[in-house]
Amino acid sequence: MNKYVSYIKNNSERFIAELIGLIQIKSVGIDGTHKVDMHKCAKRVAYEIKQAGLKEVKIYSTKGHPIVYAERIESSRLATILIYGHYDVQPPGTLNSWKTPAFNPIIKNNLLFGRGTADDKGQFYAHIKAIETILKLDHMLPINIKILIEGEEEIGSPNLRFFLKKHKEMLRADYIVISDTSMLDKNHPAICYGLRGIASAEIEVTGPKTDIHSGSWGGITPNPAIILAEIIAQLKKKNGKIAIPHFYDKVIKLRKKERDILSHLPISDEKLLQNVKCLGLSGEKGYTNLERLWCRPTLDVHGFVSGYIGSEAKTIIPAKAIAIMSMRLVPDQQPDEILNFLDSYVQSIAPPIVTVKIRKLHGSLSYITPFNHAALQIAKKAFEKAFGKKAVFIREGGSIPFVPMIASIFEKPCILMGLGLPDDGAHAPNEKLSLHNFYHGILAMIYLYQDLASLK
Amino acid sequence: MNKYVSYIKNNSERFIAELIGLIQIKSVGIDGTHKVDMHKCAKRVAYEIKQAGLKEVKIYSTKGHPIVYAERIESSRLATILIYGHYDVQPPGTLNSWKTPAFNPIIKNNLLFGRGTADDKGQFYAHIKAIETILKLDHMLPINIKILIEGEEEIGSPNLRFFLKKHKEMLRADYIVISDTSMLDKNHPAICYGLRGIASAEIEVTGPKTDIHSGSWGGITPNPAIILAEIIAQLKKKNGKIAIPHFYDKVIKLRKKERDILSHLPISDEKLLQNVKCLGLSGEKGYTNLERLWCRPTLDVHGFVSGYIGSEAKTIIPAKAIAIMSMRLVPDQQPDEILNFLDSYVQSIAPPIVTVKIRKLHGSLSYITPFNHAALQIAKKAFEKAFGKKAVFIREGGSIPFVPMIASIFEKPCILMGLGLPDDGAHAPNEKLSLHNFYHGILAMIYLYQDLASLK
Repeated sequence: MNKYVSYIKNNSERFIAELIGLIQIKSVGIDGTHKVDMHKCAKRVAYEIKQAGLKEVKIYSTKGHPIVYAERIESSRLATILIYGHYDVQPPGTLNSWKTPAFNPIIKNNLLFGRGTADDKGQFYAHIKAIETILKLDHMLPINIKILIEGEEEIGSPNLRFFLKKHKEMLRADYIVISDTSMLDKNHPAICYGLRGIASAEIEVTGPKTDIHSGSWGGITPNPAIILAEIIAQLKKKNGKIAIPHFYDKVIKLRKKERDILSHLPISDEKLLQNVKCLGLSGEKGYTNLERLWCRPTLDVHGFVSGYIGSEAKTIIPAKAIAIMSMRLVPDQQPDEILNFLDSYVQSIAPPIVTVKIRKLHGSLSYITPFNHAALQIAKKAFEKAFGKKAVFIREGGSIPFVPMIASIFEKPCILMGLGLPDDGAHAPNEKLSLHNFYHGILAMIYLYQDLASLK
Repeated sequence: MNKYVSYIKNNSERFIAELIGLIQIKSVGIDGTHKVDMHKCAKRVAYEIKQAGLKEVKIYSTKGHPIVYAERIESSRLATILIYGHYDVQPPGTLNSWKTPAFNPIIKNNLLFGRGTADDKGQFYAHIKAIETILKLDHMLPINIKILIEGEEEIGSPNLRFFLKKHKEMLRADYIVISDTSMLDKNHPAICYGLRGIASAEIEVTGPKTDIHSGSWGGITPNPAIILAEIIAQLKKKNGKIAIPHFYDKVIKLRKKERDILSHLPISDEKLLQNVKCLGLSGEKGYTNLERLWCRPTLDVHGFVSGYIGSEAKTIIPAKAIAIMSMRLVPDQQPDEILNFLDSYVQSIAPPIVTVKIRKLHGSLSYITPFNHAALQIAKKAFEKAFGKKAVFIREGGSIPFVPMIASIFEKPCILMGLGLPDDGAHAPNEKLSLHNFYHGILAMIYLYQDLASLK
């Protein structure tokens, strides 16, 4: 057993205790209700980074939630990496869907359950512990490390672009390293070479000025809940394609070579079905399920609310109906352009007797990089050495706004080494992190730092 | 000025103070949260009836909310009327849509604002005050009076049928009198000769077992919010007709004669538009707006809820989506049959990869009676004498489950003498009652009791 493995093993209980402390902070950044917790969490992250041995840690205020930044430059001869993570988490959702308390993590079968365990506290924490392990044993890093942990990933990183541009020189690095994705499955660590983008919006339909009696007025009064349902029903075609004109204009056609590679990945439709826990899967005609998830754009409604829901019918025509939805984008779709297409289309299909407002929420570009890049190949080997398993290259259906942002600013490859598993339940109740992945992930990061150092 | 007018005038302030006390009781019967208030309200109604001079008042328990019943039989030679009303009210809805407190009524411009002022506390209270006025001045009633005030009208009177059948002899009457509808406008008191029925249901779509990440899983996972929207969009056709097979099978064709009469009622589409406060009206092709409101069936969604609605997108595919909806029915549609048609249709259009459950809520038959019946003509004259204005015959889009129930048990005509106005906002925020209508309504009821007495 090498010294790193021993150190991780000997300190594993403390590592988890510290991580639990971090997860207990309710850093839900999606609305203004957890402002104090966000600051508390940023401070805690800064403290943990300092404890790991990066002495200069700074918390930057933004217009939104604070950004934690630290660095340790060992030598100008070594390569420099910028590690990215985010301490904000999704709201827990319906708390009674949780089998364990969302913010009071519990370990069961070597799995750590709690909001943010996989997305992304547990994942960026593996880097902090990799840094601690190296510094404790070697007293210096094999590579120059910069680390940025933000608090707005789950809301599309609205203030990050400004920060990146303002601090471009400070952040400059040869490679960007991010652990915020998943492995293909527990037997296949995965380097992710592509992310989808996102463009999200709220659609609000207003009919009568107030809720009114559906008996007295039903038959002549436009019903916002029905009209919004009709609008949503017209966003997708029966073949699974999105019906918004010009939506596909800039979509780059999937190359046959990539389709071949994807088709040979060891993942079955049955496995995917197990992960989403549905009666069946459905999607765009003409594509495999993996292609639909990773390489094709899609559209989902995240929330819909109108009128009254109780145990009985409150017989009203509701004044308003609101839906929040987003489209996942692929190269070269542009979020702003897509939101304009949505706006024009929805307004064109909306009946003139109601008011329809589209509020644009957030947008993020998609990202793709060639996986034959030497840095990605090194990452693959680091994974294989640490996990003792064959690693694969995958794409991801989710979006990490930081990735296309930083890639466009520095034109540097991003190394996406996710420690999650597809059934971790990111954004869902009972989110979890495999502690096996966490420990082996720390080791993988140590190997990555070491092997990447000379690739400058 | 006759003695009744003087008495009403001299006691008007006290009448309103008592009515306000009744409205202050939050008798929202729609869910279990106001059980204590429901009992309190039933007791208060019983007390008021007793104070008015009907000495035998009884509160009957039911499986749901209690029923208040009283009677005063003067002579077997006189006709007997059964007055019906309901003390339960709609939930207030969004309280910040109210300009005055929903349960703390305030008078402005001779209008009394508060939940239940028009629907139905203020209206049945006019009868109680008519009884008081007669008994104070004449010491006996001109007609035998039975009065039943229930607490479950807003949830479809689920326990009333059992009560009516059990107490059939006690309740037997020559005519049923109900004030729970509206006048055509403030210049036209109206006798209502038809009500729509109702059949309501909840539709629940379940996709993934829990909310899941829309990035990681969007593209292959059925989205319950979208699927429910698609189902709802398929319930109505573009021409405003309901798309459920067999829905119209039992609808009796509107006679040309009735269409002619309705087309001559002094109400314009502009007036209707003012009442619903929309940008425009829409409805079933081939019918006028009044026909769409009163004589044709319709379908409305009352509530829709799925996933997350906040200031930002929580990027999930929600596990569930729920809508509550109802159909307003006309003769001879049967609620149970209609709910079965809905169920079959929705299941037939639902994709097999989600679970769709239809929960049948409540149903009530429609009602229609010939308006040339002598009792209805007497009611019209009572209105004209009291208000000094020409009264008209109308139908109503709403449903009063008691009416078809009692009509089918006794085969007696129901006299629907509404004191509301179309813009009273029943079921909406800022519900109100015109005190002018309330005072003149008391007088109209006195004339009705007197003139109906000999029609046996």
